[in-house]
Amino acid sequence: MKLADTAPMAPRLALAQINPTVGDIDANAAKVGEWIGRARDEGAALVLFPELCIPGYPAEDLYLKRHFLEHNERALNELAAKVEGIEALVGFAEPREPEGSDGARAYNSLALLAGGEVRAVYRKIHLPNYGVFDERRYFVPGADPMATDTAYARVGLTICEDIWIPGTPETEEVADGAELILNASASPYHRNKGIEREAMVAERARETGAPIALCNTVGGQDELVFDGHSFIVDAKGATIARAPQFEEALLHCDLEQPCPVAETLDPVAEVYAALRLGLHDYAEKNGFEHVVVALSGGIDSALVAMIAVDALAAERVTCVSMPSPHSSGGTRSDAKTIAENLGCEFMEIPISDAMGAYTQALAEPFAGTEPGLAEENLQARIRGNLIMALSNRFGWLVLTTGNKSEMSVGYATLYGDMAGGFAVIKDVPKTLVYDLVRHRNAAAGHELVPSSVLDRPPSAELAPDQRDTDSLPDYDVLDRILEGYVERDESPEEIAAAGLPIDVVERVIHMVDGAEYKRRQAPPGIKITPKAFGRDRRLPITSRYGSAK
Amino acid sequence: MKLADTAPMAPRLALAQINPTVGDIDANAAKVGEWIGRARDEGAALVLFPELCIPGYPAEDLYLKRHFLEHNERALNELAAKVEGIEALVGFAEPREPEGSDGARAYNSLALLAGGEVRAVYRKIHLPNYGVFDERRYFVPGADPMATDTAYARVGLTICEDIWIPGTPETEEVADGAELILNASASPYHRNKGIEREAMVAERARETGAPIALCNTVGGQDELVFDGHSFIVDAKGATIARAPQFEEALLHCDLEQPCPVAETLDPVAEVYAALRLGLHDYAEKNGFEHVVVALSGGIDSALVAMIAVDALAAERVTCVSMPSPHSSGGTRSDAKTIAENLGCEFMEIPISDAMGAYTQALAEPFAGTEPGLAEENLQARIRGNLIMALSNRFGWLVLTTGNKSEMSVGYATLYGDMAGGFAVIKDVPKTLVYDLVRHRNAAAGHELVPSSVLDRPPSAELAPDQRDTDSLPDYDVLDRILEGYVERDESPEEIAAAGLPIDVVERVIHMVDGAEYKRRQAPPGIKITPKAFGRDRRLPITSRYGSAK
Repeated sequence: MKLADTAPMAPRLALAQINPTVGDIDANAAKVGEWIGRARDEGAALVLFPELCIPGYPAEDLYLKRHFLEHNERALNELAAKVEGIEALVGFAEPREPEGSDGARAYNSLALLAGGEVRAVYRKIHLPNYGVFDERRYFVPGADPMATDTAYARVGLTICEDIWIPGTPETEEVADGAELILNASASPYHRNKGIEREAMVAERARETGAPIALCNTVGGQDELVFDGHSFIVDAKGATIARAPQFEEALLHCDLEQPCPVAETLDPVAEVYAALRLGLHDYAEKNGFEHVVVALSGGIDSALVAMIAVDALAAERVTCVSMPSPHSSGGTRSDAKTIAENLGCEFMEIPISDAMGAYTQALAEPFAGTEPGLAEENLQARIRGNLIMALSNRFGWLVLTTGNKSEMSVGYATLYGDMAGGFAVIKDVPKTLVYDLVRHRNAAAGHELVPSSVLDRPPSAELAPDQRDTDSLPDYDVLDRILEGYVERDESPEEIAAAGLPIDVVERVIHMVDGAEYKRRQAPPGIKITPKAFGRDRRLPITSRYGSAK
Repeated sequence: MKLADTAPMAPRLALAQINPTVGDIDANAAKVGEWIGRARDEGAALVLFPELCIPGYPAEDLYLKRHFLEHNERALNELAAKVEGIEALVGFAEPREPEGSDGARAYNSLALLAGGEVRAVYRKIHLPNYGVFDERRYFVPGADPMATDTAYARVGLTICEDIWIPGTPETEEVADGAELILNASASPYHRNKGIEREAMVAERARETGAPIALCNTVGGQDELVFDGHSFIVDAKGATIARAPQFEEALLHCDLEQPCPVAETLDPVAEVYAALRLGLHDYAEKNGFEHVVVALSGGIDSALVAMIAVDALAAERVTCVSMPSPHSSGGTRSDAKTIAENLGCEFMEIPISDAMGAYTQALAEPFAGTEPGLAEENLQARIRGNLIMALSNRFGWLVLTTGNKSEMSVGYATLYGDMAGGFAVIKDVPKTLVYDLVRHRNAAAGHELVPSSVLDRPPSAELAPDQRDTDSLPDYDVLDRILEGYVERDESPEEIAAAGLPIDVVERVIHMVDGAEYKRRQAPPGIKITPKAFGRDRRLPITSRYGSAK
């Protein structure tokens, strides 16, 4: 092979913002190979790929399997043998013999492929082990900064977390002659994270006096979305090139020439795009052709149906309404309208007869007791059974529709509305649910979701004239308390200091703590806040902390 | 206060094998205070408590809350002020200012309380971050070995993992004059772990030439059971004192005198005791007065009912039989017999009418399709709804009855037989289920569980004449494959090398990988093997590893 005729005179750098799939080693390596060819054909001398793009990230305990590590190393070596006319930096899990009892069998490494071989390997020094990260479980930290000559320039290598911590290794690398720092990342999204990442790297560029190029992975992986948003800052911290958010892109750049600088999305559009990509990739990477959403006529399920249609197309989405005697005419007709506006298949399955069968079956054990929560939950669970029956029969992925406010306080029925494979908006606070629907309506230029849905007071409709505010504070108050407690780990006193009534704060905290057992059995959903439920927040079910209050 | 009149002449050491509760800081401190008093009154000069006994272990992300750490430190200081006439070593989470982005806010520390104050603090050096452990998430490693004079002897301090790794700190401590090494542990149980722990410590004693005393916590905490089994080995590695397994105990000992050496349980009895304590503590620490078990007439639910009765007493257990038209006369009558033999309340709730209501509701969407998995799962889910209705109405904890073999391959219905709060035998392979029932029958001296239950071929009874072996290999083959794949992370080829057919091995692995989404929504259960599902084994749902095969 030879360099393409269109190659410019000066050597150029490319950032390959790709979407790999965890565990799909051979396909990931093939994709990296294709993009190396593309970068070369478009004139790049060096192309940078994201962190751990050969095995995928986070592959969790797959990184502990010796045969998995050997497979990913073999794929890297085979790839290296084919690289000609360009150099590439590719992330992989570098096997090593485990020592002691800790079991870590690999380094988180970045390989320089050049001249048909692996010419150098940099090992990540700073391993994050907080939040969603468990890198100390899988990897041994590297110890050595690395500045190395490439066909593009002398570069200093870093991997993700390395650049978030001032000092080592970028300072030593610049001292060792690096003209440019490169960072291979798999940095997961939360609201505004791309901007924060860019500002942090700009600061690091000013500290070291060197430009920095960061290539981030893109795509959904279970509860995480990677937002792409790769970029280059110059030595003064100014952004001189930026790839788009939430899609694959090959960003060519040259420190001497004007480069493309993609605009970033506004805050609500950004969250919407994250949810759309997260759902798209969960469905695609797990092989689901079709999804099903239970439409209640309320705003949460409306939002989930919207996102599903945008992520997958209307013909891959079925909406089901399952009215009970407590369902109002308004919500029933709104459910139908939403499905029609979105262009989805719609079906209605009433649950009254099944409710009757359970009442009959439980007549003896329930004799002499008053109806209450058991009957409310039964309605939600009948719906859960029906939608799972559709899933079992037709192979559809069931999307659940609970938001973060509800998941926090346990205002949801286990095996009922919580039954399903993917909880699209489980990390979206209720107040943001409204913003997202308004945003999408505005983008459509007409009311995809009718204003009656936005205006109606929230209700689970499991008992006559029920309202969410019968059990919960107003959502604007609730969401402020939850942000302090869940996302910032504040004490009741600290939260109340922001002007919230201490008795309400304590009641909400008590509900959050008491709902841990429910969240433990919830389906996964997409992280969009600094602290989501799931791997990000690990609390015991059995705990008496705060219970004495 | 003064030393009790019965104090012997020579100073003595006591190991306080207590059962704290996570998060119950004040109650834990009060318990430690009581046991310090008891140890002093019985003549001890020094008493050693388990790792992190003030905050409880593992308190998971509670250790990240500043107010939680401050509370536990305050409780320790208040306790120290009251200690007279004895010295005590007490585990706590020592707050420190977080540095950088890692967020760890504490050391895992052991405080020497003496003369009304905290006289010294040792910080754990080796922090485990594999298996069920996330200690790098919460703690900063200590750096300094500590030998210190106490009223008993000059001792070297270590905490749990410290003693599992040869060398630091015990070697330095002995060099610094320690006559005895002390280890405060919160070391979770799996089969045979107590014996392994003792053998490992014996080796360490021979290496350092010093006796070692290990005090382990006891009790259940979500998925973990701590087995107690505290002990002392002399400098030659011989066990000279041992506390019982699975119960609180104050072990007094003296290196010069004969001490109590409790016998260890035989392997099957040990697992049974672990399950009993795990369930007991989950129910008690979470405030459940009563539990309910769905008895199918099969062996799994029979075992769970047995354990429940032994853990809580027969009057706190209700057994429910929910027969369908596919239930045989044999299983129906066996269910009743088991409940009678155990002395539990028994109720029967047939599910045929509810099945009919669903058939009706789904007639239209299912028109023209063949009955299959959807109908089988509906039966299991109707049962799940009924038992959850009992739970909601009466406040009962639902115990699920799936074993590890089924949980591994996904031979269970999400929201059906998997619906419940605690999965008592989820880490017990099917072959061990039989051993446990036989063991308990033998201990009773008569057939608590009738032999018809032990002899009947396993069946889910969700379709006519169904047998587990229609879908799965024989359980003895299945369990050998699962042990290789789940517990030892072996490749298909390695597993097959033990004489198992490669096609069966690959089919089973495919089932295990494909059931990850189910396990993610399963209730917690008790770890009794070296690698359980849950915190112990973290795998992505979205993964294409092995899918190309």
